[in-house]
Amino acid sequence: MDQPDRAAQSARLPIARIVAPRSIAVIGASEDLGKFGGRILHYLQRFGFPGLILPVNPNRARLRGLPAYPSVEALPEPPDVAILAVPAAGLLAQIEACARAGVGAAIVITGKLAEAGPEGAAIEAACTAAARAAGMRLLGPNCLGILNLPDRAMMSSSLALEGGEIRVGGIGMVSQSGALMGTLVSLGADAGAGFSRCISVGNQADLCLEDFLDYLIEDPATRVIALYIEGLRDGPRFLGGLRRARAAGKPVLCVKAGRSEAGAQAARSHTASLAGSYAVFAAACRDAGAVVMDDPAQMLMAADALDRLPRLPRAGMGVAVMASSGGSTVTTADLLPRHGLRLGQMAPATRATLARFLPESHIHLPVDTGSFHDGAGEEAITACIRALLSDPDIGALIYPMTTQPAMAERAAMLPPLCREMGRPILFVMMAGRVGDGARAAFHAAGLPCFDRVGDALAVARALVEEAAGRARADLPPPERPAGAGPAPEGLPRGALTEAEAKRLVAAYGVPVVRGLPAASEAEAIAAAADLGFPVVLKGVSRAILHKSDLRLVRLGLPDAQAVARAFHEVTAILAVHAPGGGEGVLVQEMAAGEAELILGARWDPILGPVVLAGAGGVLVELLSDVALAPAPLRPADARALLEGLAMAPLLRGLRGRPALDVAAAAEALVRLSWLAADLGPRLVELDLNPVLLRPAGQGVIAVDARAILG
Amino acid sequence: MDQPDRAAQSARLPIARIVAPRSIAVIGASEDLGKFGGRILHYLQRFGFPGLILPVNPNRARLRGLPAYPSVEALPEPPDVAILAVPAAGLLAQIEACARAGVGAAIVITGKLAEAGPEGAAIEAACTAAARAAGMRLLGPNCLGILNLPDRAMMSSSLALEGGEIRVGGIGMVSQSGALMGTLVSLGADAGAGFSRCISVGNQADLCLEDFLDYLIEDPATRVIALYIEGLRDGPRFLGGLRRARAAGKPVLCVKAGRSEAGAQAARSHTASLAGSYAVFAAACRDAGAVVMDDPAQMLMAADALDRLPRLPRAGMGVAVMASSGGSTVTTADLLPRHGLRLGQMAPATRATLARFLPESHIHLPVDTGSFHDGAGEEAITACIRALLSDPDIGALIYPMTTQPAMAERAAMLPPLCREMGRPILFVMMAGRVGDGARAAFHAAGLPCFDRVGDALAVARALVEEAAGRARADLPPPERPAGAGPAPEGLPRGALTEAEAKRLVAAYGVPVVRGLPAASEAEAIAAAADLGFPVVLKGVSRAILHKSDLRLVRLGLPDAQAVARAFHEVTAILAVHAPGGGEGVLVQEMAAGEAELILGARWDPILGPVVLAGAGGVLVELLSDVALAPAPLRPADARALLEGLAMAPLLRGLRGRPALDVAAAAEALVRLSWLAADLGPRLVELDLNPVLLRPAGQGVIAVDARAILG
Repeated sequence: MDQPDRAAQSARLPIARIVAPRSIAVIGASEDLGKFGGRILHYLQRFGFPGLILPVNPNRARLRGLPAYPSVEALPEPPDVAILAVPAAGLLAQIEACARAGVGAAIVITGKLAEAGPEGAAIEAACTAAARAAGMRLLGPNCLGILNLPDRAMMSSSLALEGGEIRVGGIGMVSQSGALMGTLVSLGADAGAGFSRCISVGNQADLCLEDFLDYLIEDPATRVIALYIEGLRDGPRFLGGLRRARAAGKPVLCVKAGRSEAGAQAARSHTASLAGSYAVFAAACRDAGAVVMDDPAQMLMAADALDRLPRLPRAGMGVAVMASSGGSTVTTADLLPRHGLRLGQMAPATRATLARFLPESHIHLPVDTGSFHDGAGEEAITACIRALLSDPDIGALIYPMTTQPAMAERAAMLPPLCREMGRPILFVMMAGRVGDGARAAFHAAGLPCFDRVGDALAVARALVEEAAGRARADLPPPERPAGAGPAPEGLPRGALTEAEAKRLVAAYGVPVVRGLPAASEAEAIAAAADLGFPVVLKGVSRAILHKSDLRLVRLGLPDAQAVARAFHEVTAILAVHAPGGGEGVLVQEMAAGEAELILGARWDPILGPVVLAGAGGVLVELLSDVALAPAPLRPADARALLEGLAMAPLLRGLRGRPALDVAAAAEALVRLSWLAADLGPRLVELDLNPVLLRPAGQGVIAVDARAILG
Repeated sequence: MDQPDRAAQSARLPIARIVAPRSIAVIGASEDLGKFGGRILHYLQRFGFPGLILPVNPNRARLRGLPAYPSVEALPEPPDVAILAVPAAGLLAQIEACARAGVGAAIVITGKLAEAGPEGAAIEAACTAAARAAGMRLLGPNCLGILNLPDRAMMSSSLALEGGEIRVGGIGMVSQSGALMGTLVSLGADAGAGFSRCISVGNQADLCLEDFLDYLIEDPATRVIALYIEGLRDGPRFLGGLRRARAAGKPVLCVKAGRSEAGAQAARSHTASLAGSYAVFAAACRDAGAVVMDDPAQMLMAADALDRLPRLPRAGMGVAVMASSGGSTVTTADLLPRHGLRLGQMAPATRATLARFLPESHIHLPVDTGSFHDGAGEEAITACIRALLSDPDIGALIYPMTTQPAMAERAAMLPPLCREMGRPILFVMMAGRVGDGARAAFHAAGLPCFDRVGDALAVARALVEEAAGRARADLPPPERPAGAGPAPEGLPRGALTEAEAKRLVAAYGVPVVRGLPAASEAEAIAAAADLGFPVVLKGVSRAILHKSDLRLVRLGLPDAQAVARAFHEVTAILAVHAPGGGEGVLVQEMAAGEAELILGARWDPILGPVVLAGAGGVLVELLSDVALAPAPLRPADARALLEGLAMAPLLRGLRGRPALDVAAAAEALVRLSWLAADLGPRLVELDLNPVLLRPAGQGVIAVDARAILG
């Protein structure tokens, strides 16, 4: 076979063929299980790889019963995949040899490369260039390879493979941490979870998480996708993948590293500090239907639940808790709010069924079957579970079992009910090994069983979110409201003045207070008279983001004398703090409202335009009551975002206060979202804070505006 | 033996003798392990009870190799303890027989009594009366008995005893749920936790949780106490027990059922709705040094950690996270804030040690040993752990292990370091059975090992709280400030008027705004002139708790004309809504402040006087930013309570705003706490809302006051 053919062949090698290769070369193969190359060869054989295994080792003619080859170039044919676990110093030579030999894809286990410093980064870059030049794909380096269960291609050195059987199932995983992937596979396998393909992408020198997400969406063996993400390569492609996964009926679960770092980043303004990239990531994922979790083990359990249990019939449902001990039902119910779960509101028919078996005082959730009338046994439990899982407001049943007689028999009743009713039962065996019979009943039925109430509740939350994400697939695309844009011409780069920022948002139809510049005391008084007393007077400078910190904002000036005094004081402060006295003085209407919001927009370098809304004024940074969404957004999304804030009761009209104009606030947010979408990367950030909310029908008005253009 | 002697003997039987009896009668003993009486007899024998076992069964001469007796009265001697698991209908006759026979204490497993309805309650009351009359103690009914490990007295039918060995150790437990207790014993035993005495108190007809708390404090075998509580019998005795446990160096951990019910209770005022009994319980427990948790399994793990691991050296320390994989360290660090934990701030010496093994960019927490320089191995890990666990700000090390080479060997390094450094290492084996070698290393060393990161973090939090509770033991008792009380004479029962409530708090030295009653327009204008414009005018009625809902509060009235108009409007509203026009009109100073607090006091029927502080005004119910403490309290406690609020940054002076007079607010709270302590059960509840906070040095002032006296 001549060289050009080899390169041409490998250039065409699709990812599906890398995951399920026909032939695999193991560079550095060995019989020593203490070595990477030894374990890779061992696992390929032990899990029964049906294709061609080609050990490469210059010192051996045979290895583990297979013919060995002195180099990759000596192989009888170019393998689809070569797995390399050689020291970093020798990696480039091996990659070059693979490229020459026409290898389709190199899986590079080798670490101490880009992640270790500039020296390693240089080697990694050279390897990537060599692979690309030859049309050879590269997975890793610093990865733990690929576990392909249905095709028995376990191309990995992970010690997770030292465990027992790993069932073939519907969970596809992509991980930016190989050790975490191996750990989750080991944990899941022991719990009976089944996997399709698990890919450790390591440093992503060439093939990246987004590539394998796309692959898993198309992969018929994969029903649920679990992702461990440290950073995205291509945000829009990733989000597009999430949407396609949803359209394909495949739930996606993510854990994203770095949630706690957001708070540590230096932030130059409110918006940046509140809308750290983790928050943007979470909002964008949710919008695209994915479920964001924070504990990797619980993500794996949720993936297993979505693979093996029925899914919730629709969005917005509550859950039920039922068990045979008061202690377990009450403590489980007590934990629901912390997990963002609520008990369902039972329909009359459900209550009527419970009333057959329970005294009136006990007809509520959680259901304690220990309170059943004497003689009510398995039939009663069955009838109650059927009633609960037919209830229009109960999406799932959580069943925490403590030590009791006949644990295994009781547990064995549940899987058939789960299947019959088509809604999930999350069974928790709270005890230790004395509960193994109950666990075995679930394992035998092929359904997951939890050891810890907290895990079951985290999974229940994921199921609720999956249903919510699924429901969002049917929404129409956002529509641009009339008069939203275009942006005015001629805005400068950098920090805008308040007047410029207001002109920008006004061009999108967001109401802002009227204001007039004033270069002198006389102009300030004239402006105030024009606007009508009382007025606000502000000193403006591009260099000062937070005017009130420097006492540059004077509110409620009742008359000309007050305006004159404020003008001089503010001018004096500007002279000290702003270069060249700043951009002068602005006189504004004094607007009133019943509550304050912050509305903002920004460009996230990974995920694109987003908007935010939250409690405004001083509370914005006190309470972090802020929610985010990708832009543009629908009015219903904007409304839901506002109604999800902690301050929402105030918007609805708290205790004798009027209901506020949430519709107008939502519309302003939608208009801002189109601004963000139109400006794209030009918009670094924009805040309207405060936006005053008036009673319903009376609108909202932005009092202050800040923006930075890039 | 004659009857009086028998009664006299049993009347003296102390709890320690009930827990460790010399002789045990099993009423309804059997050889059938499917029956309660069968299992009780079996477990007594299987765990090797060294005293006298007396089976009672009218149909058998011998049972399990022991002589059996036809009735309790036929026993050769009155046993210390009789265990009864007979049907409810026959219970009273058996209890009476036990009483006649001079049994020291009856342990009643039988259920379907008071918890099942009035019929059962009547039986239970009769049994209790019969026992009391004879001086016989009664544990239960509806309990699962006592597990006494050191004395091998397993007086229980719990199926938890079907598991493997249960180690003798320092955990003493009292539980109001028998099934939960059995479950925790089973779970703990499998994890290597060791128990002293576990008592299921059931319906507490006679002996109650507080009795056994007192017992465990004195019990030399018990080092840590875990409590599952549904309701207290005697709050002050319970809190006194917690304090004595702390003085004895025995940490107490509690899970209290009903946390989520608080929100469901109908509440007639802010204070009641925010200060539900769970919140009072949690505040009182913390004050007394106990640790309140919400997951029973995690409580057991924390008890085990406090029994077998070193405790934190002092209050207020952070934690460290270290492991060999980036994925596990980062995701663990990301979970810390959710568990109320923070990473320690490493001292220069600690950083210097890390710098020997890590590149400069990696010298931070969490520590990823996968980033160590080439060749840095076990010695480096040892040096880093020694440095971390000597750091003045690092109280504990969390070590989450993913699949890696030499898991068991790496894990085995940690227990000696934990003991050497005298600070806890919380080791998590994140993988499944492939990690069993690492788990075995910890078990062999006699230290706990966790399977789930979330469990380790919940335990770390408990350890941090235990240290905080311990530190509070050294505080002096609260001192009454000058001028705090006494309460004025002649206050009515029921809802006080605003003026009466203000007079009450003023008597304790809490500053309130000046106000004057006005029976006519002319009086209102005169009062306003006396107080100085602008003023506030309010319509007052005992029947109306929330004046502003009915527009009965008019703020900022600038002149006589406005006062006159407000007087007439408010009087008209009162005429409609208040019986007899209410208590008329009040004219007040218009006070100003930079922020609003709510300060309150109430009498909790279980735990006595408490105070609360939170964000005031409309935010009090919007954000539930409220904290509670038992009364009376120290100025430092009051200050800590205020500084723990979400609004605390505002108190410290947020972004250009002045720092506020937190000292004055704390003093007002202390004064209120003495009011609450003095009035005791007479004070149903009292709110000052809002209390206006002025800049530091300028004090606080209560603008509105409500109170209800009982």
